[in-house]
Amino acid sequence: MDKVVSLARRRGFVFPSSEIYGGLGSSYDYGHYGVLLKDNVKARWLEAMVRERDDIVALDSSIILHPKIWEASGHVAGFTDPLVDCRTCKLRFRADHLADPEHEEVRCGRKPSKRPGETPDCDLTEPRRFNLMFKTRVGAVEETGVDVFLRPETAQGIFVNFKNVAQLARRKPPFGIAQIGKAFRNEITPGNFIFRTLEFEMMELEYFVPPAESAQWHEYWVAERLAWHVRYGVREENLRARPHDADELSHYSSATSDIEYLYPMGWSELEGIANRGDFDLTQHTEASGTKLEWVDAGTGERFVPHVVEPSLGLNRAMLTFLIDAYDEEIVAERERTVLRLHPRLAPVTAAVLPLITKDAAMVEKAHALRDELRRHLSVEYDDSGQIGRRYRRQDEIGTPWALTIDEQTLSDDTVTLRDRDTLAQERIPLGGALAHLLERLAAPWSPPARAG
Amino acid sequence: MDKVVSLARRRGFVFPSSEIYGGLGSSYDYGHYGVLLKDNVKARWLEAMVRERDDIVALDSSIILHPKIWEASGHVAGFTDPLVDCRTCKLRFRADHLADPEHEEVRCGRKPSKRPGETPDCDLTEPRRFNLMFKTRVGAVEETGVDVFLRPETAQGIFVNFKNVAQLARRKPPFGIAQIGKAFRNEITPGNFIFRTLEFEMMELEYFVPPAESAQWHEYWVAERLAWHVRYGVREENLRARPHDADELSHYSSATSDIEYLYPMGWSELEGIANRGDFDLTQHTEASGTKLEWVDAGTGERFVPHVVEPSLGLNRAMLTFLIDAYDEEIVAERERTVLRLHPRLAPVTAAVLPLITKDAAMVEKAHALRDELRRHLSVEYDDSGQIGRRYRRQDEIGTPWALTIDEQTLSDDTVTLRDRDTLAQERIPLGGALAHLLERLAAPWSPPARAG
Repeated sequence: MDKVVSLARRRGFVFPSSEIYGGLGSSYDYGHYGVLLKDNVKARWLEAMVRERDDIVALDSSIILHPKIWEASGHVAGFTDPLVDCRTCKLRFRADHLADPEHEEVRCGRKPSKRPGETPDCDLTEPRRFNLMFKTRVGAVEETGVDVFLRPETAQGIFVNFKNVAQLARRKPPFGIAQIGKAFRNEITPGNFIFRTLEFEMMELEYFVPPAESAQWHEYWVAERLAWHVRYGVREENLRARPHDADELSHYSSATSDIEYLYPMGWSELEGIANRGDFDLTQHTEASGTKLEWVDAGTGERFVPHVVEPSLGLNRAMLTFLIDAYDEEIVAERERTVLRLHPRLAPVTAAVLPLITKDAAMVEKAHALRDELRRHLSVEYDDSGQIGRRYRRQDEIGTPWALTIDEQTLSDDTVTLRDRDTLAQERIPLGGALAHLLERLAAPWSPPARAG
Repeated sequence: MDKVVSLARRRGFVFPSSEIYGGLGSSYDYGHYGVLLKDNVKARWLEAMVRERDDIVALDSSIILHPKIWEASGHVAGFTDPLVDCRTCKLRFRADHLADPEHEEVRCGRKPSKRPGETPDCDLTEPRRFNLMFKTRVGAVEETGVDVFLRPETAQGIFVNFKNVAQLARRKPPFGIAQIGKAFRNEITPGNFIFRTLEFEMMELEYFVPPAESAQWHEYWVAERLAWHVRYGVREENLRARPHDADELSHYSSATSDIEYLYPMGWSELEGIANRGDFDLTQHTEASGTKLEWVDAGTGERFVPHVVEPSLGLNRAMLTFLIDAYDEEIVAERERTVLRLHPRLAPVTAAVLPLITKDAAMVEKAHALRDELRRHLSVEYDDSGQIGRRYRRQDEIGTPWALTIDEQTLSDDTVTLRDRDTLAQERIPLGGALAHLLERLAAPWSPPARAG
């Protein structure tokens, strides 16, 4: 993990937020390559969940919703962590973390120590429930403002739009509504980089099905989502689906399976797939007075669909791709760091490198190639430093292909195509470079064996 | 405007947010076509501002930043509206709106009336400053939480990351940092649909330049941004650049030009391009103690760059594209509504329509075409209702091309390509459809004359 954090910082994927002001705990900003990687993860999710299908539509609801929504959903009453305070040192802890035998012990007045076996000598209060929703106030219009919340999940914005979307969908369940957007949780985080942060992006699908079919659709989505992670290069041996035990289930869920990944800190949730039953639509029907159900305009058949929800944290997905792609190896007696990212996730698809940057003819060819590729691909042009160094820089950010313009290019219009993983260098026609890359980009891909 | 609002609602571009709970003022949710259109506007901006250039990198900073940032930026003290209250009816108004002779008069106890000439009989207080930033509290970790704000602009997240990014950029100014993200303003809005909303997405560039060059770069960016709106189909006669008068300028700005659009309610700001000088970097240097300046590692030359900022609201840009594209005309004695959107903005690029949906051979061909096109384009498959009706549905959402599979397709493998604007229908080879569409998509485009 430390190596991934260090690379992410060094190459501008992720910065601690508000750093020049001492930072704000568990908040991160995304630099250039981080934005490009994040955008690619979003695009691949949207492709698989919306663009490649006929049965799912997209939605983008507000972060600040009507406060009654969070009463109906159960979040005002139940979206809480049990917290204990120390009467002496005033530090606050999650009670369920302290109860966990694997959790590090605490000493009064200190942050949890890394050394096991230390005895906690805090004078702890009884646990109190602390709501995880950020509260703010919409208040300019009326004398008395209204307390509202920053959404802690995007799902409720989907449920309350069910009727709007169902009327337009002209389709009987099963059908789904997918959403990508920010959510906020005011929680004590264990500090595993971007694994859990105060604000984060979620990619959620609510898939509405006939009640009798919910178990089979739950199974379908567990398999489908597992396949998506593998499709984009996560190694199968680092993934597993784990059904929740009965005592782990949320109040709304009749079945939940976590897709877990083997993180440096152990197996942890990457994506959750819940069978939420009719809990949400029923709650909002009761609270709003608007019937949220499916009605067949022809036959008059009506029912409240059940909901299967695959819910993935974008930042956590990004972290997972980074960890799984991270590799080090010795090449020609020098160590290189390489991100073996799927080519369709890599922030830069192709680097264009003029070998001799003072050669005007080479630069001209390189500019022309860059401009052509750029209309279709994410391209970086790099003319600074020795060629070996430029390759290493691209390896570190996971660029699958580098195209080098050299003296031979000037005589026969071919370029060197260097492969990030195999390090193979082949000469291809300059004019065919775009088609060649597009073809390789469209081909199925699986990660090479790790060197390090 | 009413027609655009109605179309946007009817076809699922935009819904009033939290509608089943009575709504939340000035908040909107985006339905399927709204999300696709919005994503396209973002992609075109990012292309023009980042992907097609070597001098600008992307950033995605947090919504909740360290609160000292908003003190240094001047927002805590100065980002306010002057509000007056009526002592009788308790309604609250913007004082500067009441002072505006064009503003509708108010009557005590009523929302501003549409009828001119009504006398305000409110008993108004003196104006008070009301801060437009939403405040919340990060509070789980420590006994005493910290008050923080939801950012009212994305720019400050760029300035405080200047040093991080500049170190990685390996480039002397001019260079830029671009960001797309949500911002929040707790203001009284005049209710012009998505023109101004409580939460909205901004697309901002901070372009850092040598101080002596700031005026010329300001001019450059006004021209560049104007050209972007025209490139994506906004009619030139509906756009103008208007330099701010000295008394309109913000405290940080030495020059600002608004790109204005002729909205149904009159000329209003679409995009602002400000010359912010060194105000922001200087303020954050003083407040944080971290020097935000450019230093040449070789020569030791150093200076605080000046900043030129083109700042565009995504939702407002989307509204502008919708208004400018909206058209009605009579075709074959029937009225049709059509969105003449630029093909690269349209939510759906191509519709695939099997003429006879009970013909298994036609359906098979249509599915194959859909699946092929979908790997590269946004495609909608529609097999419901008469073909004329399906064309009208696509016209309403701005789909530039429809491909119809009919009996002739089964005999000679050609399809009918229907053009949204000219209504021309031509037969093209099924196998060449993708290449044909990609070529037309890449070609320059300008809007046809409006019919209505």
